[in-house]
Amino acid sequence: MKEPIFNNGAHYSKDGNCRFSLWAPDFQSVELKICMPQESYFLMKKDNRGVWSVTLDDISPDTTYKFRLNSDREIPDPASHYQSNGVHNPSQIVCHEDFRWEDRSFRGIDLSQMIMYELHVGTFTTAGTFESATEYLDDLLSLGINAIELMPVAQFPGSRNWGYDGVYPYGVQNSYGGPDGLKKLVNECHKRGIAVILDVVYNHIGPEGNYLWGLGHYFTNNYRTPWGNAINFDGPMSDSVKLFFIENAIYWLDRYHIDALRLDAVHAIFDYGAKTFLEQLAESVDRYSRQHRKKHYLIAESDLNDSKIIKPATLGGFGIDAQWSDDYHHCLHTLLTAETSGYYLDFGTVGHLARTMREGYAYTGEYSNYRKRSHGNSAIGCKRDQFVVFSQNHDQVGNRLMGERLSALVSFEALKLAAAAMILSPYVPMLFMGEEYGEDAPFQFFVNFSDNALIENIRKGRKREYREFHKKGTPPDPQDIGTFLRSKLQWEKRQKGNHKILLEFYRTLIKIRKETPVFSCINSVNVDVDGREKQKTVIIKRQLSNDGVSSVLCIFNFNKNTVQISLSGVETWERFFYSADAEWAGAGSESSEILSCNEPFTIAGLSVSLYNKISINVFR
Amino acid sequence: MKEPIFNNGAHYSKDGNCRFSLWAPDFQSVELKICMPQESYFLMKKDNRGVWSVTLDDISPDTTYKFRLNSDREIPDPASHYQSNGVHNPSQIVCHEDFRWEDRSFRGIDLSQMIMYELHVGTFTTAGTFESATEYLDDLLSLGINAIELMPVAQFPGSRNWGYDGVYPYGVQNSYGGPDGLKKLVNECHKRGIAVILDVVYNHIGPEGNYLWGLGHYFTNNYRTPWGNAINFDGPMSDSVKLFFIENAIYWLDRYHIDALRLDAVHAIFDYGAKTFLEQLAESVDRYSRQHRKKHYLIAESDLNDSKIIKPATLGGFGIDAQWSDDYHHCLHTLLTAETSGYYLDFGTVGHLARTMREGYAYTGEYSNYRKRSHGNSAIGCKRDQFVVFSQNHDQVGNRLMGERLSALVSFEALKLAAAAMILSPYVPMLFMGEEYGEDAPFQFFVNFSDNALIENIRKGRKREYREFHKKGTPPDPQDIGTFLRSKLQWEKRQKGNHKILLEFYRTLIKIRKETPVFSCINSVNVDVDGREKQKTVIIKRQLSNDGVSSVLCIFNFNKNTVQISLSGVETWERFFYSADAEWAGAGSESSEILSCNEPFTIAGLSVSLYNKISINVFR
Repeated sequence: MKEPIFNNGAHYSKDGNCRFSLWAPDFQSVELKICMPQESYFLMKKDNRGVWSVTLDDISPDTTYKFRLNSDREIPDPASHYQSNGVHNPSQIVCHEDFRWEDRSFRGIDLSQMIMYELHVGTFTTAGTFESATEYLDDLLSLGINAIELMPVAQFPGSRNWGYDGVYPYGVQNSYGGPDGLKKLVNECHKRGIAVILDVVYNHIGPEGNYLWGLGHYFTNNYRTPWGNAINFDGPMSDSVKLFFIENAIYWLDRYHIDALRLDAVHAIFDYGAKTFLEQLAESVDRYSRQHRKKHYLIAESDLNDSKIIKPATLGGFGIDAQWSDDYHHCLHTLLTAETSGYYLDFGTVGHLARTMREGYAYTGEYSNYRKRSHGNSAIGCKRDQFVVFSQNHDQVGNRLMGERLSALVSFEALKLAAAAMILSPYVPMLFMGEEYGEDAPFQFFVNFSDNALIENIRKGRKREYREFHKKGTPPDPQDIGTFLRSKLQWEKRQKGNHKILLEFYRTLIKIRKETPVFSCINSVNVDVDGREKQKTVIIKRQLSNDGVSSVLCIFNFNKNTVQISLSGVETWERFFYSADAEWAGAGSESSEILSCNEPFTIAGLSVSLYNKISINVFR
Repeated sequence: MKEPIFNNGAHYSKDGNCRFSLWAPDFQSVELKICMPQESYFLMKKDNRGVWSVTLDDISPDTTYKFRLNSDREIPDPASHYQSNGVHNPSQIVCHEDFRWEDRSFRGIDLSQMIMYELHVGTFTTAGTFESATEYLDDLLSLGINAIELMPVAQFPGSRNWGYDGVYPYGVQNSYGGPDGLKKLVNECHKRGIAVILDVVYNHIGPEGNYLWGLGHYFTNNYRTPWGNAINFDGPMSDSVKLFFIENAIYWLDRYHIDALRLDAVHAIFDYGAKTFLEQLAESVDRYSRQHRKKHYLIAESDLNDSKIIKPATLGGFGIDAQWSDDYHHCLHTLLTAETSGYYLDFGTVGHLARTMREGYAYTGEYSNYRKRSHGNSAIGCKRDQFVVFSQNHDQVGNRLMGERLSALVSFEALKLAAAAMILSPYVPMLFMGEEYGEDAPFQFFVNFSDNALIENIRKGRKREYREFHKKGTPPDPQDIGTFLRSKLQWEKRQKGNHKILLEFYRTLIKIRKETPVFSCINSVNVDVDGREKQKTVIIKRQLSNDGVSSVLCIFNFNKNTVQISLSGVETWERFFYSADAEWAGAGSESSEILSCNEPFTIAGLSVSLYNKISINVFR
C-alpha cells in the first residue's frame, strides 16, 4: 500500500518525527514556531516549487505550532489537521497512526445500492458531536440507511455553522470532537456496514480565519463566485493550488477512511485550463482507489445540468461518479406545494417529474424562465446511479425564510408520497436527517462568527436574499444561538403518533427498495414512465432488462383528490403496498387490490401504490 | 436553398421591402428613425423575446437609419451592415441581392489542401482597399496561395486599425470599401479558385463606437478578458447574445460567400453553460454547410492547447475544425532567433519542434515556466489538418516592440529554413503577407480613435506591456498615421535581389508541397520525426500510409554551422532540393547529393534539404 505524500501541513509519525510544510513561494523566510509544549523557532527550507519545510524529531504528540512569515507575521497552518482552540489560535499536530481502526472487513457500499442520509453533526443530536452521533447509528441502520453524508466538518469559525464557511480544509471541527471524534464515528459506521460520505468545499474558503489569503496565489480575480473571489485553479501558480485540494481529497480517504466525497457547488470551481481541476481530482481519487482496491466515489453538487461533469474522460467528461439532481427535488416539491417562487418557477408539472425520472434532468437544453436562458444538456448514456435524488436536503430546507421542512408545508399523505417518490426512484435516494419521522423542528441558517462587521453583513445579506425570493417576513438571526438550538432534531418525537408511523413507512419502503431487484438494480432495469398531466399522476412500470416476468407498477398520485385511471395493455396486477391504507394512517383503501388493464380503477389522492404483475391475459 | 433568418439588423430585398430589428428587451419603446433620404420615425413592435421590429415597403436602397430608444437616445444599429460614415453616424441599408456573384462553380478548398495567406487589407496595398487588393490576387495565385485570410473587416473606429477594435460585427469597414468591396474581392478570389477566410472577433467589442453597451445583457461582470468585460455567453438573457454572434457567422457565409471563419482568441470566450457558444456555433455552421452542400470551416485561435476545442462533439469536443498552433511558431522562432523573453522562455530546443511536429502542441500538460502552471492536453486522435502553422503572423510580428518581421531578425538562410519548416510541415501552412519576399517594412500596431482619453490609454498600455516583455525602447505611437504607413507592403521590392529569390523559393516549396502526395496528403501520411538536440537538426521521414515505396526525407538544420550526421537504416536517398544551393543564393552545396544510411554526411548550416528514396540496400 503506497502512502500518500502530502505537500502541506504537519505529518507526524508515532516515533515522534514530524514534517512541517507550507507552500508560500513569495516569502523571503518562513519559520516554524513551536508554541507548546516549549516555545521555539526553527528555520524552514524552500524547495524549487516554493514549499517550505522542516522535519523535527522527538516531538510530543500534543505539540501546537504556527508559521512565522518574513520574520514578522505569525499564522496558524492553513493545512492544519486540528485547530483545537479555534481558527485564530495555534495548530495542533495529529498522530494519525495512533488510531486503532477496526474496519478492515468493510469493503464499501456500491453507489447503486446506497441509501444515503444527510446529516449535520451539530444539530443531529443535543450534544452536537461525532461521539453523540455514534449513539444513533443503530437507529439509522434499522431504518435501512447504509451511507451517511456528513455536512462539512472542516474547521469553521466558532462552534455553530452549516460548514460552508470552513477555513481549514484539512482541519476537523474542534467543537464536533476533532480528528479523533471523526475517526471514531467513521469506524463505528464501517463496523455496521455504513459508508461515510463527506461534504467538501473546493469552490471558496470561508470569510473568517482564512489564512490562505495572505499567502498569495490561492485566489483569482478573473472569476466571481457568490461567496467572494474564486479559487485560482487555472492561473499562474495554480498547479500547487490544485495540489492543495487534490491532496485534501486523498487525505480524507486515507487518514479518515472516508468512502466518498460530496463536492460542494462545482459550478463555482472555475477552471478554463486544458486539464481541469475536476478531471485531475477524479483521476487522483481513481488512482487511490485502484491502489487500495476499494472504490471511492466523487459526487458533485452542480447547478449546470451538464452531463460532461459525470461522463467518463474517454467521452470528454470530467469523470465524476455522480451528481445531485436538484431538478428531481424541484419537480417533487412543486407538485406537492404548488410553490412558484424563485427557481420553482421552472417546475410544477407531472411532465417535469416524468422527464427527470427518465433522463436525470428536467432541463436538457430547454429555456428556463428562472435563469432567463437555455439550461442543461442531455444525460443520455449516463447510468442511473449517477444521480442522487432527495425530497429535502439542507439547502432546500435551510434556505427557506424560516427553514421549514416539508413536514411544515404539506399534509401527512403528501409526506408519504414524497418519501416514496424519492426512495423508489430509479436513482440513488438521499434522506435529510429527521425527514424519516417528519421532524417538525426547522433547519435554519446559523453562524457563530466573532467579527461584528461580518455578522452584520451576513444578517443583511440573508435579509436581502429573502426580499427577492420569499418576499415576506424576517429570517431568524443567523448569529443567535437560538437559531441553532431551534434547528436540532427532536429524537423523542419518533416514538409517537404519525411520526412513528412515518418512520415505519420509510423503513418499509427502504426494505422494499433493497430487497426487490426491480427497485435495487437501478442500472439494469427498464423504467417506463407515463406522466398524466390531467390526472396529476405518474405511472411507472419497472422491469429487469433480462427478465420478462417480474414487473412492478408504481402509481404516484399527486392529485389531492381520488382519480380514476385506466391502463392500456393486457396484464393483471396485484397491489402489495398502498400508502392510503389504514396501516399508514391513510383514509383507508379506496381502490381494489387487483388492477386489470383496460378497466378503470380509482386511486386515493396523494397516494403511492405498488403492484406486482400476476398474469398476462393473452386472449383478451 | 434555405434563406437564413436574422433577428438583428436591417434586411432589405430588392423590391424595396426592408425589415429592421433590434434586440432590446428592457426598453419601453424603440422607434426606427429614417435619416436619409427623408427624416421620419416609425414605431417598432416587440416580440416575446424582446426583439423590436418593423417592416417598411418601398424604401430606397441608400436609406440611412438609426434607432430611438425610450423616445430619447438615438443610436446607430449595432447590427448595421454598413456604417458608410463611420461608427458614430447613421447606419445604411445594404441590398445583398443586388450583387452579381460569379462563383457558382467554386466548391471551396479542402482544409488539408489549403495554403493560407494572412492579409491586412489596409496595409496590403498603397490604397488599402478591397479593390486594390484584388489587383494582387494573380500574384498570390502564381505563388501557389489558394486561401487568403482577411484580418477583421468588421467596422472599427477611424480608418486605421488591425481590426480587433471592431464595434459593428456585421458591418464591413467603410474605409476598405464597404460591403460591395468585400463581395467583389471574394468574387474575384473564387473565380481564381482562392478560398476566403475571415477573421471574426467574438470575445469582446472594441472600445469606441460600441452601441451594444447601452442595450444591456451583452456583457457580463463574471469574467474578465484582457480587453475589458467579457461577452455574456452564459448568464441571464445569453441565448439572444449567442444568437447575435451565431447569426453573424452565418451572415458572413451567406451574404459574402466567406468560406471559413478564423475565431479570434476563443480562450476569452467564457461560457460555463452545459452547451457552450462554440459548440452551438460549430453546429450552426455545420448545418449551414450541409444545407448548402459546401463545407465551411471554423478555425480557432486558442491559447489553451486544449484539444477539446477541435475534437468532435461525439468525443465531448466543441467541434471546431482546426486551430492555430502558436507552439509551432514559437518553436521555430526561438530556434532561429534564440530569443527567450516572454513566452519564448518556454521554447528553444529541437525537442520542442520535433514534439510539435508529432503532436500539434509542444505542451500537452507539462509545466510552463512562462505561464507558471501546467499547460495543455494531448491532441492524439486529432487530424493533421486541424492545425494551422506559420513562421510569422500579424500578432507575432506586430506585437514586437518595433513590429519587426523575421526578415529584420535573422539571416537570409534562416528565412529560407523558416519558410520550409512551415510550408513542408505536416500541418496546414499559413504565410503572413509579405513574408514570401522577405518584406522589410515592419508591421506595427496602429489605431485611429477619436477619443483622446482612449488614445492616451492605448499609448500607455502599449508602453506598459513592452516594459515587461521587451524591456527596452519606446514603441511607435499607435495613433500616428506614420505608424500605419510604415507598415504597408512595398510590392516593388519583390522584383529585386534576394527578395526575388526568396519569392521563387516560396513558390517552389509550395509547388513541391502541392504536387507531392507525401507532402499534400497530410492526413494519411506517416511522419517519423527525429530531433537531434546536439546537432540542432530535425530529420523527418514521410511516407504515405498505404505505400511502401515513395518516401521523402526532410532535413532541417537549425545549426548555424555545417553539421555531420548519420542515419540508421538501409536506404539510399537522392537529394532533389537544397536551400544552400547557389540557385537559392546559398553558399553552394556542401554535401553530396546521394545519402546512404550509416554513412556520415554533411549538411550546410541553416539549411533544408529534401531527398527521395531511391533504393533499399537489403543485403548490406
